[in-house]
Amino acid sequence: MPQERVDETGLPMDIQGFPEHLLTGYRNFMSGRFNEQQQRYKTLAESGQKPKTMVIACCDSRAAPETIFDSGPGELFVVRNVANMMPPYEPDGHYHSTSAALEFAVQSLRVTNIVVMGHGRCGGIKAALDPDAEPLSPGDFIGRWMNLLKPAAEQIQSNDVMTQAERQRALERVSIRNSIANLRTFPCVNILESKGKLRLHGAWFDISTGELWVMDAKTGDFSRPGM
Amino acid sequence: MPQERVDETGLPMDIQGFPEHLLTGYRNFMSGRFNEQQQRYKTLAESGQKPKTMVIACCDSRAAPETIFDSGPGELFVVRNVANMMPPYEPDGHYHSTSAALEFAVQSLRVTNIVVMGHGRCGGIKAALDPDAEPLSPGDFIGRWMNLLKPAAEQIQSNDVMTQAERQRALERVSIRNSIANLRTFPCVNILESKGKLRLHGAWFDISTGELWVMDAKTGDFSRPGM
Amino acid sequence: MPQERVDETGLPMDIQGFPEHLLTGYRNFMSGRFNEQQQRYKTLAESGQKPKTMVIACCDSRAAPETIFDSGPGELFVVRNVANMMPPYEPDGHYHSTSAALEFAVQSLRVTNIVVMGHGRCGGIKAALDPDAEPLSPGDFIGRWMNLLKPAAEQIQSNDVMTQAERQRALERVSIRNSIANLRTFPCVNILESKGKLRLHGAWFDISTGELWVMDAKTGDFSRPGM
Amino acid sequence: MPQERVDETGLPMDIQGFPEHLLTGYRNFMSGRFNEQQQRYKTLAESGQKPKTMVIACCDSRAAPETIFDSGPGELFVVRNVANMMPPYEPDGHYHSTSAALEFAVQSLRVTNIVVMGHGRCGGIKAALDPDAEPLSPGDFIGRWMNLLKPAAEQIQSNDVMTQAERQRALERVSIRNSIANLRTFPCVNILESKGKLRLHGAWFDISTGELWVMDAKTGDFSRPGM
Repeated sequence: MPQERVDETGLPMDIQGFPEHLLTGYRNFMSGRFNEQQQRYKTLAESGQKPKTMVIACCDSRAAPETIFDSGPGELFVVRNVANMMPPYEPDGHYHSTSAALEFAVQSLRVTNIVVMGHGRCGGIKAALDPDAEPLSPGDFIGRWMNLLKPAAEQIQSNDVMTQAERQRALERVSIRNSIANLRTFPCVNILESKGKLRLHGAWFDISTGELWVMDAKTGDFSRPGM
Repeated sequence: MPQERVDETGLPMDIQGFPEHLLTGYRNFMSGRFNEQQQRYKTLAESGQKPKTMVIACCDSRAAPETIFDSGPGELFVVRNVANMMPPYEPDGHYHSTSAALEFAVQSLRVTNIVVMGHGRCGGIKAALDPDAEPLSPGDFIGRWMNLLKPAAEQIQSNDVMTQAERQRALERVSIRNSIANLRTFPCVNILESKGKLRLHGAWFDISTGELWVMDAKTGDFSRPGM
Repeated sequence: MPQERVDETGLPMDIQGFPEHLLTGYRNFMSGRFNEQQQRYKTLAESGQKPKTMVIACCDSRAAPETIFDSGPGELFVVRNVANMMPPYEPDGHYHSTSAALEFAVQSLRVTNIVVMGHGRCGGIKAALDPDAEPLSPGDFIGRWMNLLKPAAEQIQSNDVMTQAERQRALERVSIRNSIANLRTFPCVNILESKGKLRLHGAWFDISTGELWVMDAKTGDFSRPGM
Repeated sequence: MPQERVDETGLPMDIQGFPEHLLTGYRNFMSGRFNEQQQRYKTLAESGQKPKTMVIACCDSRAAPETIFDSGPGELFVVRNVANMMPPYEPDGHYHSTSAALEFAVQSLRVTNIVVMGHGRCGGIKAALDPDAEPLSPGDFIGRWMNLLKPAAEQIQSNDVMTQAERQRALERVSIRNSIANLRTFPCVNILESKGKLRLHGAWFDISTGELWVMDAKTGDFSRPGM
């Protein structure tokens, strides 16, 4: 049994140092997947990434796209923010994290698919539906970020014949369609989609059951694909 | 041989539909990891996520944190944007994707670790070091986003005794330290860190060799942890 | 117990004499390696040295080329000076220690490889990066010798986004490339290299981890060779 | 058996690449000495070198001080030039490789012993004794470097009752005493030696027999120490 490492102040290193669970996981990765796919990583490093698919997903710890789609290195270019949202085209000179990622994926990497991927029990969506939600901090960053969904959230919240769970699931799916509509406000997306060179998709993952629901591009409805 | 799927207009689904490689991966996930961890997913759905660690990572398809840290569901709350950047505290009423995720992770989920994770051969960093880079689109979202690193990028770019690869690696690491410094401009981070309730970490992943380099919290230098 | 040795004036030899640790090491050499390789030493003495490789290395006590490359007698022709530097071609009639060694190795011994070998935590490089360094003595020999790197050192030193350790490592590698560039200012090196009869290499040794990094002849970048 | 590596021009990598014999030796070092002394290397890296002894030795491939004194990392600070020469004190603003190393060893590292170590069959000494020696190149760097020994060399060369081998051995030893005399022209050496804080030594190694001859500090004579 190794001696507990402490820093000069006496704090154990497992508190102060790099999280041990990450180092343990990294060692598993190295002896497992990396060991098996060394050549693939080397080639991906040397020739650059060429993913065909961009995924806009949520930060939620239970909904990692690479896990759900069992993806290997080089397959998915992934943006993750709270509630997997794509803001509208706003060429105003401010920093736009998600728009920058979109631009890079479409114009530089030339992805041919963009998947907006939502999931059940999303904390951001829940906050958007709570009229009494207090700002989490004076900056109220979550409140302002969820304003992207405000018109839809207000409509759904005012609906008193659906249950709370039904309202939440409804807004989770509205949010996906909203992001897809916002994607189309970007000229580069609009042009490439009209030429058939880029396809937009929606998906929704149920953490509890593992079900994946896929959006029908024409109707916007979600259904489960055949297995 | 599966029957060709067509939609109601008669278009084959393999043209119109959801990317097949994602569906194939999803089926692997369901028969593999989900099948083994059904109870964990169910519990995580019902009791909510309680990740202890937030990771700020890059969108790059070769550097998924869940893969590199071999993480299971519920472990990592993950923001991904181009070049794994944390912008500074700007409570100005605009949409701030990354700041919203930070606020949610720190104030709502109460994570105790934040890891800024960079990687080698980052396309965003490369763009930041290219003085002749043309905007990828009229909105120039990547150009504006990478402005977050502009002062550092200009310093490093003007150094003509380092090779291009050395300049790139230098900026990749500067970017991690820059993000950590920006994290500390958020009052909630600053306060919790000073109380010892939140720790900030840097890490850098070498796609080609699989090496993980971890930042020394005191000096900002990167070194490889013992295996 | 050995009798105390005294010289003719009666002073004990252990004060006046040759360092005991060297005599002890020499006895180990004689009973070990020399004993095993007597014939090789005899042949090398009689037929002369014919090393194929010249190494330009640092004086540092932790980075002896014969140790790191596990080399036997006759293998490496080794110049060592502070910070493993090759000055430029200056046929001015002054004493040029390193240039004389180069001339001997290339023109008389006809080596086919020259390796410039740097290492981490080099005291000379550290001095070159310290703007407040006082001369070590009125002659300021170290200061003047490190002037060979002055333009590069000033560029790197002025970079305030890299850590001190990163600046040091950067200059350690710049110094290797600088020496290789200076080697090419010697007509004999230039001509033989262009004919494919002489090859120039760079290497960098990490004292702490034992890692050897080898320079790519085309890009000047350093990477670890496969083991 | 691994496939032969070739570069894009078809040249085998063992010609074009880093010398294979060095890589092989390095692997031996890593699995051998470094593996056994990992902690020592780590400590030496972190706390810095503190050698007690500086050696001024020849570049000759058959006379590496670390080999002959069986020295480990951190023990010897080693300058190597052709014919192990120490030039006199010349604070003239030019580059002085050996003087810079001396200054660093004495003033910064505070070594307590300096050993000038010559050896038999030295090519530089042989050149100094050859009146018909042509410059090896137009710069005549060896010729100029050996001028440091010119007065002594001319005297010995004009002696026609000693054999050529005797003249060579004589000059090899004169050269050691000459370097020691030059060391004393440096004020810092002179002062520290007079205070008893620094000792100067001479040694001579016979490649053929492995004999080490040590100089008597008072008389300048060489004799073999007891074993």
